[in-house]
Amino acid sequence: MLTAVTSITTANTITTMNEPNADFEPVVFRPIGVIRSGHRVAEQTPVQPVYAQGCAGRAEILPAYREGLRDLEGFSHVFLLYHLHRAGTPRLTVQPFIGERPCGVFATRHPQRPNAIGLSLVRLVRAEEALLFLEDLDVLDGTPLLDIKPFVPRFDCVKGARGGWTEVVDETTARQSGQRGFCPQTP
Amino acid sequence: MLTAVTSITTANTITTMNEPNADFEPVVFRPIGVIRSGHRVAEQTPVQPVYAQGCAGRAEILPAYREGLRDLEGFSHVFLLYHLHRAGTPRLTVQPFIGERPCGVFATRHPQRPNAIGLSLVRLVRAEEALLFLEDLDVLDGTPLLDIKPFVPRFDCVKGARGGWTEVVDETTARQSGQRGFCPQTP
Repeated sequence: MLTAVTSITTANTITTMNEPNADFEPVVFRPIGVIRSGHRVAEQTPVQPVYAQGCAGRAEILPAYREGLRDLEGFSHVFLLYHLHRAGTPRLTVQPFIGERPCGVFATRHPQRPNAIGLSLVRLVRAEEALLFLEDLDVLDGTPLLDIKPFVPRFDCVKGARGGWTEVVDETTARQSGQRGFCPQTP
Repeated sequence: MLTAVTSITTANTITTMNEPNADFEPVVFRPIGVIRSGHRVAEQTPVQPVYAQGCAGRAEILPAYREGLRDLEGFSHVFLLYHLHRAGTPRLTVQPFIGERPCGVFATRHPQRPNAIGLSLVRLVRAEEALLFLEDLDVLDGTPLLDIKPFVPRFDCVKGARGGWTEVVDETTARQSGQRGFCPQTP
């Protein structure tokens, strides 16, 4: 019987994760900049951009990467990929901030993950030299930035997606838990 | 005058990226599994899930991380974060696969980026022990998987986003360029 790490490829040959084309070498990334926000305390940082409305901040990109920012200003939203550098010990079962019961970590956006990579979809207000001015920022001040990707509506808008356990959490509770003390500015 | 790497915080104190809370240490991640797909040639791999419709594949997770997959099956879509291990030399200006003119790499999803992290939003068909069965998979077979995050409609659906340079590319051209030879299955 096949174990979980053994699989049958589409060509029906048996491969395992130990084969040469399954590469488990550690991967090294180097920050391209730093995220600046008003969130100075991890425990009081909103857990998602939707719970950080009105929170302005910046991505400060190292000058060496400035050329790569060209053409970004036409996009209204960008994905930030960053190192959750204060996440602490990884856990496989976590208590989601907005949920009532523990879940497998990969079914959550909790920071204490095996690879502490954060993903935030934030509003890009403007780009100015090596600075990106952002809004709805849910990221701790001083967070190392690893990558920026544009949000492309034709790629990233999924209609009718099912949200698993998050669907049974009512929005008032989710918002209160998710803001973690951050008070959105009223216009 | 302030340079691009110097900024004024919200508290109006001046900070720079060289301060202790700007952390530019390299970050090391270890793959949690491997992505299996029918795409065996990088140059023929679709560039986005929307151009890989009907392409089934799997994420094979290392047994040590299996507990973290619990509760994932309720979600219809997941983000895969992976190492673009065959991306080649990073470039700051790239020719997007679906566009006509070169762009700054951070305004594209091109793989040749300073930190070669891939992001794909794919359909989760089912989870079975340490295997995730996926569809609309645009990832090269053998790609090291770094993280899985659920697509949460209340977090990730952005309405009315502007798509920058991608908005002037007509969909027929984008689809032809984006599929890169992959022929979607007709039901």
